[in-house]
Amino acid sequence: MLSWLRSPLRGRGLPGFDGIRKSRWSQLFGVDDDSEGKGHQPKLQMTCGVHGTTADLSRLVPYMTLLGILAASFISIVDIFTHVIFEARKRVSVDITHGAVGYVIYVSSGVLLCLLSTFVCQQWSKEAEGSGLPQMKSIMSGFHDKLSNSLAVEALAAKAVGLICAIGGGLPVGWEGPNVHMSCIIAEYLSRIPYFHSLRQDKALRLQMMACACTVGLASSFGTPIGAVLYALESTSSFYLVPTFWKSVLATISGAMVFDIWYKTPVAEAFENTTFGPDDYRKNQLILFCLLGSFMGIVGAFFVKCTHEVYQFRKRRLTYLSNRFVLVGVVALASGLTQYNNELLRIDPRKAINELFSSNAMQLMTYSDVMFLLLVKFPLIAVCVGLPIPGGVFISSFLMGAGCGRLYGEFLRTVLGPSIVPGLYAVVGAASLAAGVTRALSCSVLIFEVTGQISHMMPILVAVLLSVTVANSFNQSLYDTLIVMKNLPYMPNIRGDVFLSQRVSEVMIKDVVTVKERSSPEEIGTLLIEYPTFSSFPVVSERRSLLGVIRASQLRFLIGGSSATAEKLHSGADELPEGSFQDETFRNQKISPRPVGVEGKSNEKKSREILIVPELSPLEVGDNMSVGQLHNMFVMLMPTHAFVVSRGELVGLVRRGDIIQNVVDVGS
Amino acid sequence: MLSWLRSPLRGRGLPGFDGIRKSRWSQLFGVDDDSEGKGHQPKLQMTCGVHGTTADLSRLVPYMTLLGILAASFISIVDIFTHVIFEARKRVSVDITHGAVGYVIYVSSGVLLCLLSTFVCQQWSKEAEGSGLPQMKSIMSGFHDKLSNSLAVEALAAKAVGLICAIGGGLPVGWEGPNVHMSCIIAEYLSRIPYFHSLRQDKALRLQMMACACTVGLASSFGTPIGAVLYALESTSSFYLVPTFWKSVLATISGAMVFDIWYKTPVAEAFENTTFGPDDYRKNQLILFCLLGSFMGIVGAFFVKCTHEVYQFRKRRLTYLSNRFVLVGVVALASGLTQYNNELLRIDPRKAINELFSSNAMQLMTYSDVMFLLLVKFPLIAVCVGLPIPGGVFISSFLMGAGCGRLYGEFLRTVLGPSIVPGLYAVVGAASLAAGVTRALSCSVLIFEVTGQISHMMPILVAVLLSVTVANSFNQSLYDTLIVMKNLPYMPNIRGDVFLSQRVSEVMIKDVVTVKERSSPEEIGTLLIEYPTFSSFPVVSERRSLLGVIRASQLRFLIGGSSATAEKLHSGADELPEGSFQDETFRNQKISPRPVGVEGKSNEKKSREILIVPELSPLEVGDNMSVGQLHNMFVMLMPTHAFVVSRGELVGLVRRGDIIQNVVDVGS
Repeated sequence: MLSWLRSPLRGRGLPGFDGIRKSRWSQLFGVDDDSEGKGHQPKLQMTCGVHGTTADLSRLVPYMTLLGILAASFISIVDIFTHVIFEARKRVSVDITHGAVGYVIYVSSGVLLCLLSTFVCQQWSKEAEGSGLPQMKSIMSGFHDKLSNSLAVEALAAKAVGLICAIGGGLPVGWEGPNVHMSCIIAEYLSRIPYFHSLRQDKALRLQMMACACTVGLASSFGTPIGAVLYALESTSSFYLVPTFWKSVLATISGAMVFDIWYKTPVAEAFENTTFGPDDYRKNQLILFCLLGSFMGIVGAFFVKCTHEVYQFRKRRLTYLSNRFVLVGVVALASGLTQYNNELLRIDPRKAINELFSSNAMQLMTYSDVMFLLLVKFPLIAVCVGLPIPGGVFISSFLMGAGCGRLYGEFLRTVLGPSIVPGLYAVVGAASLAAGVTRALSCSVLIFEVTGQISHMMPILVAVLLSVTVANSFNQSLYDTLIVMKNLPYMPNIRGDVFLSQRVSEVMIKDVVTVKERSSPEEIGTLLIEYPTFSSFPVVSERRSLLGVIRASQLRFLIGGSSATAEKLHSGADELPEGSFQDETFRNQKISPRPVGVEGKSNEKKSREILIVPELSPLEVGDNMSVGQLHNMFVMLMPTHAFVVSRGELVGLVRRGDIIQNVVDVGS
Repeated sequence: MLSWLRSPLRGRGLPGFDGIRKSRWSQLFGVDDDSEGKGHQPKLQMTCGVHGTTADLSRLVPYMTLLGILAASFISIVDIFTHVIFEARKRVSVDITHGAVGYVIYVSSGVLLCLLSTFVCQQWSKEAEGSGLPQMKSIMSGFHDKLSNSLAVEALAAKAVGLICAIGGGLPVGWEGPNVHMSCIIAEYLSRIPYFHSLRQDKALRLQMMACACTVGLASSFGTPIGAVLYALESTSSFYLVPTFWKSVLATISGAMVFDIWYKTPVAEAFENTTFGPDDYRKNQLILFCLLGSFMGIVGAFFVKCTHEVYQFRKRRLTYLSNRFVLVGVVALASGLTQYNNELLRIDPRKAINELFSSNAMQLMTYSDVMFLLLVKFPLIAVCVGLPIPGGVFISSFLMGAGCGRLYGEFLRTVLGPSIVPGLYAVVGAASLAAGVTRALSCSVLIFEVTGQISHMMPILVAVLLSVTVANSFNQSLYDTLIVMKNLPYMPNIRGDVFLSQRVSEVMIKDVVTVKERSSPEEIGTLLIEYPTFSSFPVVSERRSLLGVIRASQLRFLIGGSSATAEKLHSGADELPEGSFQDETFRNQKISPRPVGVEGKSNEKKSREILIVPELSPLEVGDNMSVGQLHNMFVMLMPTHAFVVSRGELVGLVRRGDIIQNVVDVGS
């Protein structure tokens, strides 16, 4: 019976697999995938028709499952360490010692831990500083190559140790951004296992891996698989490859199981499910929720602005704080000094959120406590975002939103009577402030999963939508602001697009190094010596018509591997660091204004000429196309460069970076 | 303070708007957007730099809000009519009359209603038959133009009346597919309001509108906004434009409010929230849920296969059933005859599902009732999918899955004791059978929203993922199968892709009608008379280098609007039906093997030659590119055609349809 089911319309194993398949992207403008192929025998034919088959699934499914398990385990271990250090510090300074001695121990241990946090970042990897989400957004917009340092194992170590120390040291930083970053690094290293090499070579799959890793990181932070999938969708911000969906779900489920096991251990706090009844929300209260959502949008935009201003102010005015240890030390000292007196400020954010979300009266805090918490935490959090330590902001905005919502709810309850359930307002406030800061509608789904209740969907969805709309009318999301602040490359540009109406001919590089269709071995040899870093060359006809692209390794193969010159060339290329090929391609373009291969000589050497057959079809565009159009093609097709053709002749080259650079110059 | 927030990083109103913006697509390969521009003065310059500003939001926000409200209202009204007819029929035949008289009334009224349902489809629009989701999937893959009949108001009327009659007449058809279809038609007509015209002209926005309409239709069927957004995401199946996300959420929330109001009226059934406790699921039961998920996957694949086989068998063998009235009459008769004796078979599916999902013992049905229901309904539903009446299959598969799950749960309870909660198994069964039929992971999110509980996420997610994986290893989703059965155009091809490794030069049309850069008015006039249906022509240089594309209207303008010829041409073009331009372009290519514009004459008429400046940059590809690569470019960039260039010369043309046709020929 099972075989009868199979015919005539054969399925493809897993959902979404019939969309954009493996290797399609490497076929398109395949020059980019060269970095993995060096040292191997160059392929004489383009590999076509390698579509998603069960062979891919046998790699993809274990990869995603392993990714989920490894990332979630790693994140859980980091979380537990954090918790242990935090608790140990509290116990030593409060329970064992008291008074002034305890105070000194608490503050000094905090400062020391924070200094250690920034020290490991300085020593191991500066890429580990900050949230990590902006870098991942940049990578997912196609700049894998430009940010390869962010995915190094040193960044993982620095991020993990730094995060443990920073949170353990009492700074109000979140763990979701660092978790996403760590998860992406794990995904990167997992893909280096030889069995998964074929996945890694595919550009589209590599992007999908990163999206899945983001999902796992976020899901492991809060135990929210669906919200995390949606959050990763929104983070890609231009277009989402639908086959990512099942991969993310698979990876997240594997991760969630680990998470599930860890968090039932009594070591760490977990979010509690809320228990709102069906009568806790009445339709006439929707306007109250709308007001809360809009207000949280303003607060979110204000927070982003504050973060930006604090960062700018510190860079410009407070130059004596330019030393990272002084800076972190001062903030850690301030944090420690205020925290010791007040148990409230030392509370685990998850515990505080559970308290604020509860449908009953609050047990641990009074309303003035909540207000005090908000007033002290807000500036501290805004300062911490720009510190050279690992740390995110999501959970902090969650906490602040919950606090604001609870206060608003309690106020309404005293005014309007017991039909108001303040805990529900806290939930709505948390979702909408997080949405106001990150501008992600998926915050609403995150909160459904955090609370385990979806029956009060309407007020949350409406408030989140309003919050995002209001906040967006003021400024950009925190992550986009950080991308601009840190000057990260980003494709769907966020820096203004006034010059997108320029013609391609105005931004292109005009002097393209080409190789003639019929060239002598000497010409090719000269070319390879002159441009040893180029990974590929465009092949042109006598009339400079673009015929295709040939890889440098293939040219070396053509002129014969036995000659001393070729050997030298080959070994020279092998010394290049991995991944640098893409950057190096055509970089030194402007050195050579003349076309390579002198025409006069070629007649004499006719017998020794080699016919070069191009291997790859590059992206060709007309010179009167607008930069806006080309920008769109870069976003959608993700090539590293496009050749510009005018009246049948190759006249120029536009690299991905040229468009961005162009926009950066104008916008900033 | 608010103005301080604003600088220096300006936001853009609503989320996702900084991704792919309005008009980018129309700039790319803008020939397609011609249909709206006819009769107007042709633009001499390409409109560039029209990016998303607040001006667009002032149209987009009201459009999406209105779409949600209108579609949800329409769907609610249809639903209430359905319910009223169904109830009236039951009351007349059961409560007022009894026995044989009641039987005759019940059966005959059912048969009459079903005949009426197929009659309106025959008379008004045959596009209204079936689910409607396959057509919408086809449209969302870029075939708006080929399926414009499906979006006509006649289809809306036929779908609504037909659906009311079919469900009222007692056939076990679902309403979610028809709801999606109706919602899309409403979106189409809403965009024809002059205020929204600018949205309509943008190809990317038009696709997004359709995706939003699908979301609203599905959300209104079950009251599930988030699941519906995800379902629309999965339906696009290649890539999802992230800016669609906030638009869908906005439209869905507006719709959900309407839905919320309607369904609190006591007229129609609604899904009840489930009330599973935290102990109802224990981790060691996960393996039992996995078994259920896998089994539901097999059942889902079996159902798809049955549907396909029944359809084929009817077409081939039962030719005496080729008359639609005979066919529908027989099925309605069979359905009516079995239903009258058994109240169970007449039950509203929502009521039955509520019963099956309940955490307590069942009140309305016994276990043998459930088994009987499954045995009778399964073949009936499989037959109904192919009938020439409107009707979907989602809710039916939901019901069958819930039944299977409940039976399985009850069985386990008797074997393993009271730790098993059969209602939870019914929920998992419903989600995983729906997923097995539609292959959508978002079925899990749909069920969270239907039940209002997300706390038992893990077994549902795992079972759904398993179900989809198992089912996909046998065949394609029901909707993909229907697309193939109905021979609808579909871009990420689902018919096998063996020939994607062909070269572009093997599938292109070689004889492209071109216009020379310098042509005399007579040559242009001849060209326009010879190809009156072409909307645009490629402009080539003397050496046949492609310079760009010019619109026919612009050529008419160039040779002067005053001459009698031009007048004639112009009026001729106006008679073409709207939207036909895209199809007609280059259709009759093969008529003209010779290039237009004889070279000999041009020297004599040098003084009267016109210099043609191309308006648009078309998509150019090399002739040695593989069809697979080009296919990917068609999927991602959605042009209608691409020009093939070899050694600097224009040598051919590939239309969207050529690739699909090519694949269809091979695959079927």
